Amino acid sequence: MKIVPHVSLVTVIEVIAILVGAFSGFVEARRKRMDIVGVIIVAFIAAFGGGTLRDILLDKRPLFWVQHQEYTILLFVLALAVAPFMKHLRHIVSERLIVIADAMGLGLFAVAGVSQALAAEMPVFIAAMMGVITGIFGGVLRDIVCNEVPMVFRDGKPYAICAFFGCWLYILLRQVEISEDVALWSSAATITVLRLVTWKFDLRVGRP
Amino acid sequence: MKIVPHVSLVTVIEVIAILVGAFSGFVEARRKRMDIVGVIIVAFIAAFGGGTLRDILLDKRPLFWVQHQEYTILLFVLALAVAPFMKHLRHIVSERLIVIADAMGLGLFAVAGVSQALAAEMPVFIAAMMGVITGIFGGVLRDIVCNEVPMVFRDGKPYAICAFFGCWLYILLRQVEISEDVALWSSAATITVLRLVTWKFDLRVGRP
Amino acid sequence: MKIVPHVSLVTVIEVIAILVGAFSGFVEARRKRMDIVGVIIVAFIAAFGGGTLRDILLDKRPLFWVQHQEYTILLFVLALAVAPFMKHLRHIVSERLIVIADAMGLGLFAVAGVSQALAAEMPVFIAAMMGVITGIFGGVLRDIVCNEVPMVFRDGKPYAICAFFGCWLYILLRQVEISEDVALWSSAATITVLRLVTWKFDLRVGRP
Repeated sequence: MKIVPHVSLVTVIEVIAILVGAFSGFVEARRKRMDIVGVIIVAFIAAFGGGTLRDILLDKRPLFWVQHQEYTILLFVLALAVAPFMKHLRHIVSERLIVIADAMGLGLFAVAGVSQALAAEMPVFIAAMMGVITGIFGGVLRDIVCNEVPMVFRDGKPYAICAFFGCWLYILLRQVEISEDVALWSSAATITVLRLVTWKFDLRVGRP
Repeated sequence: MKIVPHVSLVTVIEVIAILVGAFSGFVEARRKRMDIVGVIIVAFIAAFGGGTLRDILLDKRPLFWVQHQEYTILLFVLALAVAPFMKHLRHIVSERLIVIADAMGLGLFAVAGVSQALAAEMPVFIAAMMGVITGIFGGVLRDIVCNEVPMVFRDGKPYAICAFFGCWLYILLRQVEISEDVALWSSAATITVLRLVTWKFDLRVGRP
Repeated sequence: MKIVPHVSLVTVIEVIAILVGAFSGFVEARRKRMDIVGVIIVAFIAAFGGGTLRDILLDKRPLFWVQHQEYTILLFVLALAVAPFMKHLRHIVSERLIVIADAMGLGLFAVAGVSQALAAEMPVFIAAMMGVITGIFGGVLRDIVCNEVPMVFRDGKPYAICAFFGCWLYILLRQVEISEDVALWSSAATITVLRLVTWKFDLRVGRP
């Protein structure tokens, strides 16, 4: 019942992705002057929101964070431990490191989303949408709870678009009967690289 | 597994209703200076949000837009095609036309909601609520994502109230064993007419 | 299929808790200058939102307010009846009374949440989270719809924390095989008392 095979490496990336998502929630909630309760809950929403929405739309239970209770406990304990040093933490962790970890998380989450949607026999376009939703809606829900227009909808960066292309790559690779593992890792890596390249060169998409 | 019988006419109205909902999302997202990703996703939320919430509350799967993948593809392609001309589009399409199409969509969606809720053996008051939710929550979710107090909750126009009365009419007609088709079309038409009349005479409800 | 046993007393508290939640929605929606439709719907969201989110996450159907159609009808009729006198009502009902009723509701809802999560065989940490979600997300969703940062995330009062401790007490009592009734009432009472004590002495938690 793992999200993806090859537990060891995936688990490492997955935990990193969850922690990066949680960190983004932590930072945003602090900026909004929330108290410790708000900060922790927004961190949870940012970390688990995208996967939860996907599971609800696919009607998949137990939710992935219910299956992985250890992730929720890890996040809770870390949040309590880190909270007092939060002010300093932002200066220690470099932005570059966060972008890289986040790009890895985007790739893994989006591909996990499209893979599960195909496994649930969704049509291909829907499956690609589910991949994008899994990848970006943690941040969307974080911003909604923080009373902001979602960043991913307005910053003009092709964040969701990278996920979208990677999801189609995965669908394509699965159609030509390439093994699931190869499809999975190459698609996730493609999303990560696309995201990092567009970030490096500060590429933008237009406003209609 | 259609939402309602008589595919041809219903399909036409349904597509119109979805496009009008999407258009409202498109306009609102542009007003918020969102990029193309935000504009498309808000259009999807405005078009499919109400039916999705109803399906989740009723625990109905696959979701109606999963069953109708063609609607999501149509919307996606149209959004990409229309985006460059968006600025001009608002001047071409008259407000009157949009209100009429939206009133038709409200009638169809609300009656589809109450009809499915009854089919799922919901009690009558709950079924009427489900009809109203189906009719208005696309717009509510659109406004929440755009960081606005939902328009339908504050503009004082009896939009949801028209849907509510039409849903009760449908329930009543079904109780007296009138055929589903007659009940459906007369209730949907009643909502549409009520909405257009209240719009024409600019009727308002009070603020408590 | 009741939320908790001992129908008579629980039903009384449950109805009080729902009415207090609805009242908070009513007040907040009025403050935002919503019309009667918005005020009623926000009252519903505040009253039923937490339990609905819990039921969706646990995949429990019918939703608790579908099983208790009478609660929705009661709320609807009351809202219509009370709306014209709303301006005066706030001066008649004392804040103290509302805080007490709300603290009772918090205890009951949180314990009902954790109890149902355990019954659905959720792991204990998840079950405690479900209890907190049931207790506080009515207010969170109310504030999101009203376009505010959720009060419970930013006012620095240990509202959610009281619920969290009470949920763990319930889990603990169930582990040592104390009867469900005793566990339920003592945990709910603990939450209520904790909430009232922290309110009385205006205790605050920090901002990270």
